[in-house]
Amino acid sequence: MECNRSNKMPSISKSKIAISPCAENTINPIRKLVDQLIINPNPTKRLLKLNIGDPSVFGNFNPPPEVIKAVSDNLQTSCYGYIPAHGLIPTREAIANFYTTEKSPLTFEDVYITSGCSDALRVAMDCLGSEKGNILLPKPGFPLYQTIAGNRGIPVKFYNLLSEEDWVIDLKHLEQLIDENTAAILVTNPSNPCGSAFSVKHQMEILRVAEKHNLPIIADEIYQNMVFEGDSKSFGELSTNVPILSCGGLAKRWLVPGWRVGWLIVHDRHERLSQVKDGLIRLCQVILGANALIQGAVPQILATVPQSFYKDTVTRLKKAADILYSELKNIPQIRPFMPKGAMYMMVQIKVEELHDINDDMEFVEKLIEEQSVFPLPANIFGIPNYVRLVLTAPEDILREACKRIAEFCDVHKLRNLPKRSRGCP
Amino acid sequence: MECNRSNKMPSISKSKIAISPCAENTINPIRKLVDQLIINPNPTKRLLKLNIGDPSVFGNFNPPPEVIKAVSDNLQTSCYGYIPAHGLIPTREAIANFYTTEKSPLTFEDVYITSGCSDALRVAMDCLGSEKGNILLPKPGFPLYQTIAGNRGIPVKFYNLLSEEDWVIDLKHLEQLIDENTAAILVTNPSNPCGSAFSVKHQMEILRVAEKHNLPIIADEIYQNMVFEGDSKSFGELSTNVPILSCGGLAKRWLVPGWRVGWLIVHDRHERLSQVKDGLIRLCQVILGANALIQGAVPQILATVPQSFYKDTVTRLKKAADILYSELKNIPQIRPFMPKGAMYMMVQIKVEELHDINDDMEFVEKLIEEQSVFPLPANIFGIPNYVRLVLTAPEDILREACKRIAEFCDVHKLRNLPKRSRGCP
Repeated sequence: MECNRSNKMPSISKSKIAISPCAENTINPIRKLVDQLIINPNPTKRLLKLNIGDPSVFGNFNPPPEVIKAVSDNLQTSCYGYIPAHGLIPTREAIANFYTTEKSPLTFEDVYITSGCSDALRVAMDCLGSEKGNILLPKPGFPLYQTIAGNRGIPVKFYNLLSEEDWVIDLKHLEQLIDENTAAILVTNPSNPCGSAFSVKHQMEILRVAEKHNLPIIADEIYQNMVFEGDSKSFGELSTNVPILSCGGLAKRWLVPGWRVGWLIVHDRHERLSQVKDGLIRLCQVILGANALIQGAVPQILATVPQSFYKDTVTRLKKAADILYSELKNIPQIRPFMPKGAMYMMVQIKVEELHDINDDMEFVEKLIEEQSVFPLPANIFGIPNYVRLVLTAPEDILREACKRIAEFCDVHKLRNLPKRSRGCP
Repeated sequence: MECNRSNKMPSISKSKIAISPCAENTINPIRKLVDQLIINPNPTKRLLKLNIGDPSVFGNFNPPPEVIKAVSDNLQTSCYGYIPAHGLIPTREAIANFYTTEKSPLTFEDVYITSGCSDALRVAMDCLGSEKGNILLPKPGFPLYQTIAGNRGIPVKFYNLLSEEDWVIDLKHLEQLIDENTAAILVTNPSNPCGSAFSVKHQMEILRVAEKHNLPIIADEIYQNMVFEGDSKSFGELSTNVPILSCGGLAKRWLVPGWRVGWLIVHDRHERLSQVKDGLIRLCQVILGANALIQGAVPQILATVPQSFYKDTVTRLKKAADILYSELKNIPQIRPFMPKGAMYMMVQIKVEELHDINDDMEFVEKLIEEQSVFPLPANIFGIPNYVRLVLTAPEDILREACKRIAEFCDVHKLRNLPKRSRGCP
């Protein structure tokens, strides 16, 4: 029996209180892996943390002054009280207008405000998935999807992204995974960790698969519009028949991930989501939604931040990607993948070219120990022998990191020595 | 089969997408009841909304300037980035210091920051309760407990509060409800909706029951220190052997319920909660915690808000309670219960003294229709024939509301007419 009373013991003060299966199964793969990682930087070199997907870390990607002003202005007015759990109507309206296109008109009733994009993902996955209704996830993919699924007991299956084809979805594999219990397909576009941005042509192919199997799409579009190359659009704009639950927020495009204001936009051209919409409202009520102060500032933020700010961010991310790519592509032991969007670059580790490194975890541990450079091992995203680098570091840090990675690879490159396995001296 | 694929139909564009059992079972009793309520105010009278437990509604209970300044100051610094899902260490430390007493010393590791007190309750209930592990709830009680339990499939049982004894817990009844699957007892003190504040003597009795049955207590203490009368303390301060998970936040005492910064404080004298503490961190990671801007301001808020502010709030709430009590106690058809804490007064409706009113729902509907006064029917809290009034309205509104309630009761008082049942002309 799993219940908490099973550990009742005569000596009360010593018996541990057990936790629920839900808490047991709420697992954050990042934490699990980072806990295993030996992080022991070289004390003679400054640690270059290229591991965290937080644009605010280096101080060079700050929110625009209009964002700060909007919150500051709102702080002077009545922003203290409870608001509807799924959001203030003017905020929902402003977001609906911001994302409305000719082909996908939105009203405030299509928008649900959540406590960050994570909460939007929680609400979407909890509303569609269940112990009996599985959800399909990308591999490599953002580990929070698994945390949410584990928390709720939703079975997941992973469809492959094809590294050799700009990380598009292996549609055949995706289709093979769909069964009669599949509740939704989750797609991430632009992608964390891949830095990919699907072409419209590929997006239409994905929509056709969803339509064929009568499945809604949960689209993690937190990096929407952060595209350096190609014609990628939001799934909501492209869908004619497939219901889309699009998750977004202020975090990435407005560079305030810590502020926890996200949203879920429902694209429902054929009124197939009436139950879902009601379910989303119910699920928002569990934690009573996002904070009123920042949420109330959203209309002003969307109205005042100039287009030049969004453009400038994308230009600078593209420049960072160009620097990393041009520096890393000449190192024989690794292979960078030029990103098309988001804030990341995936780099393949050719372990067969390294004499004493057996996987991405070991690569990262030794890179930290010797060169104080910290990329994220892509094991965390479900794919071995890649690392993810962030594009948000300043140019000098990126160049320095590349130099150190080159030095590191040169030291560890295969020299006709027998390959050693991990842990052996 | 409950899964979403069961409604696959040939005509794709018309088939509805089904929702999960979790979304189905996430029910907010307030919404359900308020949806049923006919709200049709008398157009010749200003509507007096005494139904919402939001101190900010009337503009007379505003956060102190120190709270606004702390957030404004923090807005100028780096408050944009991701922070640990269970909170910033300086914030956790400040809260630990603020609530430390000689008998219950706390460190930052005992404090978990959450997206409002609702999220603290979610995390606590999800960590201890499960489909097999029931939680005991107060009746009358705050309906969100049921929303959270329904969302998670946690069975609940209701223990009675005794209106005739200042709403103390019927301990015999509580004990009868405990079974081998009981995972926790949830207590609310001071109480929403009762306005009660338990004596230390009664709190010790409750602790003895929990200790005898080896049960942890989830203490909803969002109204902690908001006590007008008596010696009520926090359960964490009083417990020696019983593990306490205390839920609190900025909402009520600092008068910013919309800002969604809450906390869970764990009192664990005998290291029985090591698994629970780990589980709480996991559960915080599902939505990645409370917003960084306001959370980062908490140390300054706790350091700068003067004691006089807290005192003044309590004095003014007590004065509001005195006004309501003295005005309402003379109306023969109703019976006010003098509160000892929180922001509410319960008022019993003597339906047997009213000729055409059969329950609290009808009382409220007619009171709105005729007098434009809106109390909350206590059916929402699981108890019939009471209404809950808020204490946060300005004096003139409270007096006007009392006058109108008196007039209303006089119009509807029993005049030796045969009692009519609801719905009959």
